[in-house]
Amino acid sequence: MADGGSGEDRLIAGLFAPIARHPGALGLKDDAAFLHVPAGHKLVLTKDALVAGVHFFPDDPPASIARKAMRVNLSDLAAKGAEPLGVMLAFAIPPEMDVAALSEFARGIGEDCLLFGAPLLGGDTVRTPGPFTISITALGSVPIGRMVKRATARPDHAILVTGTIGDGALGLALRLDPTRPGFAALDAAQRAFLADRYLHPRPRLSLASALRAHARAAMDVSDGLVGDLAKMLAASNCAGEIEAGRVPLSPAARAAIAAEPALLATALTGGDDYEILAVMGEGDVDAFEAAAIAAGIGATVIGRTLAGEGLVVRGDDGQALNFAATSFSHF
Amino acid sequence: MADGGSGEDRLIAGLFAPIARHPGALGLKDDAAFLHVPAGHKLVLTKDALVAGVHFFPDDPPASIARKAMRVNLSDLAAKGAEPLGVMLAFAIPPEMDVAALSEFARGIGEDCLLFGAPLLGGDTVRTPGPFTISITALGSVPIGRMVKRATARPDHAILVTGTIGDGALGLALRLDPTRPGFAALDAAQRAFLADRYLHPRPRLSLASALRAHARAAMDVSDGLVGDLAKMLAASNCAGEIEAGRVPLSPAARAAIAAEPALLATALTGGDDYEILAVMGEGDVDAFEAAAIAAGIGATVIGRTLAGEGLVVRGDDGQALNFAATSFSHF
Repeated sequence: MADGGSGEDRLIAGLFAPIARHPGALGLKDDAAFLHVPAGHKLVLTKDALVAGVHFFPDDPPASIARKAMRVNLSDLAAKGAEPLGVMLAFAIPPEMDVAALSEFARGIGEDCLLFGAPLLGGDTVRTPGPFTISITALGSVPIGRMVKRATARPDHAILVTGTIGDGALGLALRLDPTRPGFAALDAAQRAFLADRYLHPRPRLSLASALRAHARAAMDVSDGLVGDLAKMLAASNCAGEIEAGRVPLSPAARAAIAAEPALLATALTGGDDYEILAVMGEGDVDAFEAAAIAAGIGATVIGRTLAGEGLVVRGDDGQALNFAATSFSHF
Repeated sequence: MADGGSGEDRLIAGLFAPIARHPGALGLKDDAAFLHVPAGHKLVLTKDALVAGVHFFPDDPPASIARKAMRVNLSDLAAKGAEPLGVMLAFAIPPEMDVAALSEFARGIGEDCLLFGAPLLGGDTVRTPGPFTISITALGSVPIGRMVKRATARPDHAILVTGTIGDGALGLALRLDPTRPGFAALDAAQRAFLADRYLHPRPRLSLASALRAHARAAMDVSDGLVGDLAKMLAASNCAGEIEAGRVPLSPAARAAIAAEPALLATALTGGDDYEILAVMGEGDVDAFEAAAIAAGIGATVIGRTLAGEGLVVRGDDGQALNFAATSFSHF
């Protein structure tokens, strides 16, 4: 009489069940999923939501939207020194989104699940009259007592960042106005590099174990280096000083800033970096840098923590720089 | 220089940090939360999203919206025999939602966290140009090997439901059209009862241990008894037969159906019950019923599983009933 399958069930089965091969996903046919947390480990949990028109462009490729949603969450796990266990995915589908777009979205999720070892465990799909909205809860594990926290920085330690800073924010600025002098100075490959860095964050999961071994505090840079570092210092009750000239920049970012110096502030405060900001003792710096180089990412000392409060960013002349906005806020 | 606090941070701190007192929440000041899963247990995970205008009325009291979002998730944990460990909460705030409404929403979340022992561990708040949208990931634990699954029903077992069926769907129908003959026949207390059952699901967490002890399969009834049972039977590769006359109804539902018999179909297929549908051997029925009575909820045998496939719902005359829609689908 009843076939036990609604349109919703069939859609989920067709697109997402083939991705959800982890036994704990129960083929997405149950009310819930299950997961074993390895003995001697605790669970690390993070949850970021993304809204079309707020956190990504509605006309971004659906597979890229999927990757951004996965990676901003996996970046949080990486910053805590956690190894991924899986993800729970909910999304709200707007009226104009067709099956082809949903299928591309599912493909992006599935490919990142495999790439980062973070299997899809379960979730929910709903309809919305509003914009495409995605919420992911990422689950990871760390050995008990080894989670790298944000509020545990101490004075007289080195401040490092992984990779390069500002590419995501410059990629966004490029997308919003490609005619700006800074971007007109770039070649096609440089423009494509920045655009890709905005669209596809690169969660630094390969540095999770090095962070556990060496970092005293860490967070991922999502809302801008200056603002995020200020947040970490405030939470840790210490001060800090960094030199803008030591902040690692990609060749593309360097070229854009050379042609339009105002873009330096965009790079330092714009956000969408998804690099890791870490504080560690001087004795740990060499080993962490070596691990970061071995991972093909790199890490750079940009300053020091100090006793007191507040963050000073020094320009090449040694003077403190002021930024109109120190951090991107979603509010 | 930078104060390390955006509007978003301050809003979260002001409304939600006081709720998030679990040590693993890290005061909502980190990228992630942590959680210890008890030794010998596995983690149970569920994630349901709710959209204003789809899953609740935009003018529902914000604290009630919060409770619905919490409880539809906790109901899934209950149906799996899981004990709550905590929740991760993300929500997207529409332009018209003010701080007073957010504060009421936070109060509803906080009160249910305490009521059900499911502490707020973390999450995300974002702005949306669309409707108020909430996503909760609920985390629970079960002793390893004891999770109650959906696809594990077997033939020749009893089919039971907890509590009463149809109150939520009738509460919704009442809200949509209070002038229907079935609702005109009710007194004010009966109308208030149905309205409350729609607005405030009651997750049957107090039956989690009895389900682990006695049920062979279970799920929560969220999309309608008939459709959900058909889903469970199909997933379990067995058939079933229930008698509509044995489905437990509240006095209010009984009175509404007596005055307007068409409402029986609403009660049996409408959804929003958040009662538990369980399949168990005859030898377990008495003990489970006793546990359900002791919990003040009750449980009723409504039919049996059979070999084969398909679900038959028999009316009082023994004839099979047909329903236009066997299940509510969000698609």
